[in-house]
Formats: sequence, structure tokens, C-alpha cells
Amino acid sequence: MTIKSIAAFVVATTISISSFSQSSPTAVAEDFKPSSLNQPGQEYPQVNSQGYARFRIFAPKADSVKVSLGLGGRGGTILKKGADGYWTGTTEGPMDEGFHYYNVTIDGGKFNDPGAKNYYGSVRWESGIEITAHDQDFYALKDVPHGNVQQILFPSKSTGTPRRAFVYTPPGYEKEKSKKYPVLYLQHGWGEDETAWSNQGHANLIMDNLIAEGKTKPFIIVMTYGMTNEVKWGKIRDFKIDGFQTVLVDELIPYVDANFRTMANRDNRAMAGLSMGGMETKAITLNKPEVFGYYGLLSGGVYAPEDLKDKAKPKLVFISCGSKERPDGVNKSATDLKAAGYNAVSYVSDKTAHEFLTWRRSLHEMAPLLFK
Amino acid sequence: MTIKSIAAFVVATTISISSFSQSSPTAVAEDFKPSSLNQPGQEYPQVNSQGYARFRIFAPKADSVKVSLGLGGRGGTILKKGADGYWTGTTEGPMDEGFHYYNVTIDGGKFNDPGAKNYYGSVRWESGIEITAHDQDFYALKDVPHGNVQQILFPSKSTGTPRRAFVYTPPGYEKEKSKKYPVLYLQHGWGEDETAWSNQGHANLIMDNLIAEGKTKPFIIVMTYGMTNEVKWGKIRDFKIDGFQTVLVDELIPYVDANFRTMANRDNRAMAGLSMGGMETKAITLNKPEVFGYYGLLSGGVYAPEDLKDKAKPKLVFISCGSKERPDGVNKSATDLKAAGYNAVSYVSDKTAHEFLTWRRSLHEMAPLLFK
Repeated sequence: MTIKSIAAFVVATTISISSFSQSSPTAVAEDFKPSSLNQPGQEYPQVNSQGYARFRIFAPKADSVKVSLGLGGRGGTILKKGADGYWTGTTEGPMDEGFHYYNVTIDGGKFNDPGAKNYYGSVRWESGIEITAHDQDFYALKDVPHGNVQQILFPSKSTGTPRRAFVYTPPGYEKEKSKKYPVLYLQHGWGEDETAWSNQGHANLIMDNLIAEGKTKPFIIVMTYGMTNEVKWGKIRDFKIDGFQTVLVDELIPYVDANFRTMANRDNRAMAGLSMGGMETKAITLNKPEVFGYYGLLSGGVYAPEDLKDKAKPKLVFISCGSKERPDGVNKSATDLKAAGYNAVSYVSDKTAHEFLTWRRSLHEMAPLLFK
Repeated sequence: MTIKSIAAFVVATTISISSFSQSSPTAVAEDFKPSSLNQPGQEYPQVNSQGYARFRIFAPKADSVKVSLGLGGRGGTILKKGADGYWTGTTEGPMDEGFHYYNVTIDGGKFNDPGAKNYYGSVRWESGIEITAHDQDFYALKDVPHGNVQQILFPSKSTGTPRRAFVYTPPGYEKEKSKKYPVLYLQHGWGEDETAWSNQGHANLIMDNLIAEGKTKPFIIVMTYGMTNEVKWGKIRDFKIDGFQTVLVDELIPYVDANFRTMANRDNRAMAGLSMGGMETKAITLNKPEVFGYYGLLSGGVYAPEDLKDKAKPKLVFISCGSKERPDGVNKSATDLKAAGYNAVSYVSDKTAHEFLTWRRSLHEMAPLLFK
């Protein structure tokens, strides 16, 4: 299977889907609270118990203010100006649970909401809002032992500059000085970067909570930048995996194995990624089946049994997406792989689209299955 | 000396000073290049070889666009609209070298420049620009061994929530498994947070470079959030140190000593801070002289000999500021302390004000003097 056909699949599955849920309550509940991702002390944006979002932006002399979140056909939520110079508006319907990127158009220019924290997506730092999810407990910051997320700068001859990665080490890593750990290499999506999985994804908190509940083996997670050849959106078919594969396999993995207490072998090394990161995972695991023992594609394509033929057999293939993406393809892939004798698991995140709650949940489902 | 009088001093030294240098070249050199802090692929803001900054913002239907950086009296740099919908403007004079926070006012509302990365200052994520400094090499990302910066979440009974800190571990920390290190607790300023010293300050790169040149002993740096009681600017006199002192001394230090390979004693523990962080450093080192052996105030007040009387003697007092702040006070403090028998060093950063280049340089000067 060529990169082109992989890419075609990913593009097909990642077409933007409206973030609106289908239900339309008759009355908007006036129990709005600041989004959990607001900058310190900021009252807006707000979210209510039904999942509506309300925005408020100060721009007293502006002629038009619009927020990019909202019904696709209308291009977002149009805010209305009050006598006090604040522009206010509420989404026309409830949003999907979880994390959403957005931006604000002020008189034709694209800016961020000064009330919200920023997250790197769409090749820019975007505003982020969190619609409280009914299952948010699994990624909540709790009073449990916490692992660390550390920024490393690793040498990269192939790109001629030290490169950044983030490494999650599980609770106890610093104290249990002789223990060695398996490693998951976990990739972000198109337009994002190596900050996404911990900032938007809460990968560290998901792991801390799973480990505290005894539901997963402690392991290390390594997250680095995967857009080494600056793919433009819409041109993802032109993506060449070679550059990133060299950085990951020939430079990052040896550095991590030399500088962290890893179990440095195939059966203790996994690769997974979301969206474009899934495309990368598929390409690299098929090119280097001797390097990784566990594969995960999160809203990022599928494996067919023939992809894996005549290669070192993976110990697990995990394939997932949101129910608003293409769950049939994901489920069929796992069924086909199982029929062909592979250990394959599919997971469909309920009522979510191509967004981060799908991927938080996917990590939460996948982690307990790794390194068994 | 009371917190009130300390605070009064800090306020007096931190009055905002224009970031403009005094020289006024006759012609603006047309050699503008993107600021090193721009978001990936963004051409603006730009900086020229003389230190002028040029801004370019797309807002085709706006009536006025202004950038907060510029001559104080004029309230910044007013941009002019072009036929293409872009607003452009250049600072009226060259800026001081180094890092500056700024924001953009669009039709009366305050936003960030979509071209620039954001940095937490003034209790919000602000745009940042870097005016190339003649001595930038000491904080450049080079091909030398790099330490890591890791996010830790430590338990805090006094505040009822796990709290975040960043920990710099020097190159080799992961490999030299039995080596123990001294620790510097390093505080940000008012309106900033625990991200400031590594994001704006490049503390990790300054240390990596110093260590590579053999100029400083490798040590750990711990950076946490110091605004535990949400001081409002202008109300810094009301700051109570107790809350933060408890977090730092009773919660964070024991956690760091239990989870990192530290030399857990006074002679191997330093505290320093910039601006409000200096005020905190002074208060806590005087309250807890048995905990810290080295003190550093960076644009954050001074010690008088009588402050230190009848307490465990510090091994070093380091006091610094920019030449555009109050260098006389800083130099006098060191002179007085030396006359009274203390090991005191003052440092004045040339042609800088109450901004991050002063503090990058101060760390660069202070680090080699610690733990000797």
C-alpha cells in the first residue's frame, strides 16, 4: 500500500464535520460558567449545562465580530454589540462535548479570544474552549500521584538542529531508580505540534489516573513534532514519510533509549497517532515492523490484513475514531484483522467527531491494552 | 524590615520605563526580518538591524489598529491601512534589545498579534517580540548537550489542589544515576507564571550553554507559580508572603527533595526571583534563613546589612537590575553588604530596562557564582 492511498483514506476520514450535536433543546439553560480553559480570571467564554457556548468580546468600535464555532453553513456564531462595547453571542445549538479550537473574526481579521487560552492547531495558536463532558473524570486533575512531562531537546543530524520532544514519565519514575519502562511514541495531527497531546489531550492526566486505578502498566510516552516537511492542508497526499521516519527511528528513539530507563526492544515499543499522526504511524510501522510491537491509529486510517502480511506480526493493532467519523470502516478493519489472525481492537467514541475528546478517550481505551 | 517597606521599594524600582533606546538614527534600514518569536511561517512582526520593529495586521474592515509597543507618550505605534486590508506600521525609534510583551488594539478591543507567539505576562497571554541582542549567543539554541525542562504536579494541602512547577535538570542528569545536584528556586514577576523563566527567559538554554563551556556547576532549577494570593497590579503593597512561603518551603521543596536527586541542605539551595519574585525571595530568605544559602534579587529590591543581622549568614547575595532601572541602589546595596562582611555581588545589565533581557543576563551572571 502506498503513502498516497493511505493519505487518501486519511483525507476522506478527516473532512470537517459540524461540531454540533443533533438534539435541539427548546430553551437555553441560563447556567453558564466560564470554560475550564479560560485565562486566569476571565469570565468568558462560558459554557452551560446543555453544551451551549457563549462568547463575549470587547471591541467598542468594531463593525462586526464573529466566532468560528457554530453551525457550519452560517460560518460560526455572529456576536451582537451592546451599549457597553462588548459583543456577545451564544451558539445556536449545543456543541459536542470536549475540546474545540476556534478563533474570532474582528472586522475581517482573524484573532484569538482574549479570554481563552491558546492551543496549537491549524498551524497557528488558536483559542480553545472545553464543553464539559459527562465522562471528564478520566482526564481530570486529581489528588493522585502524578507523572512528569518533560521537554527534551535531542540532536538531529538529518534536520541540522536540535529538535523538541515532550516525554511523559509515570509516577515513581524518579524514585524507582532501577526500573525500566516500555515506551509509546504518540503523534499529533495536521497543523498541531508536540504540545498537543499534553495541552489539548491531557495525555499525562489520563495516564496518571489510569495508573492510580491500577488499570494500566506504567509506561513512558514520547511526543515530538511530526510535520517535518511542512505539509499544506489539502496537499496531504504529497506527504513524504522519509524525513520524519529518520528523525523518529534513527534519532529520537536512540536518544530516548540512551537517556531514559526504557525497555529498548520491539515488544516494549508502541507507536500511535491521531489523524495525520495515524497516517505516519501506519507508514512507519509498515516500513519498520521490527521497531514497533504495538500500533494505534486514532481517527487516522486503518490497516488491512494484506498491509501486515509477510512482516513481523504486531502484538496489537488498535484502531479508533469518533461515532461522527467513519466507525464502520474502523470496525470492519478490526474484524478483518481478527479474522486474519491478528490481535486487533476497534473503539468508537460516542457522539464525537474529528476532535480531541475522541482522542483522549482513544488513549484511555488503548493504554490498558499496551505492553501486555 | 516589613513586607510593606520591601514592597514599596519594589514598586519604586519597577515603574515602567520606555523601551526605546535613546539614539535616533536618521534612516530606517530596510533589512527587516521576521522576529525569532513568530508563529511558524509568519512573516510579521519583523525587526531590523537597528532594532526597529514593524507590524502588519490583517483587518480589512477595521477603523483603527494600534500596537502597544512604542513611545510611551503616544501610547504605542499606530498602524496605517493599505488597500489590501493590511495595517502596517514601524516603531518610531529603535527598541531596546531583547524580549518585549505587546498587544494590538483593534477598534478599541485588546487582542494579540496573530503573527507572534504568546507569553504569559500582565495576567494574560500577550504577544512577544524579540529584538535581536548583540549578546544573544549566551541564550541561543546550540548543538551542545541539553538538559530537560519537566512539568511536575506536586501535592499542596495548603491550597487544596495539585500545583504545577517546571524543573530544569542539567545535561547528564538521566545518565549519571547516583549524582546529586544543588537546587535554585527561581521566581517569575508580577502577572507572569511558572512558564516565564523557560519560555521568555530561556533559563534552560542559558544553563546548557554555561555548562557546555564549563562556566557553571550543573544544578537543578525549580520554577513555580508565585501569585498565590492574586495580587492586583498597583496593590502589590497588600501582598502577603505567607501563602506562597508555605507552598514553597513546606510543600514544593520536600517534594523536589523526595523526587529528584538533590543535595537537600541550605548550602546547596538558592532562591532568586525577578521583580515581584525578588520581593518574594527577600521575604522568604529573611523568614527562613536556615533553608536557603544563596539569595538573588533581579530587579526586585535590595538587602540592607541590617536585614541580614542575627540570621544564618548567606553564602552569597546577588543583586541586579537594568541600567535603565535603579543601578545606583543595586550597587550601593552590594557595597554596603560587602563593607558589613557579606559576600555580595551586584550586576547592572547595560542599556536594558525592567524586561527579560535584564533577567536572562542576570541569570547568566549569577549561575556561575552559585554553590561554590
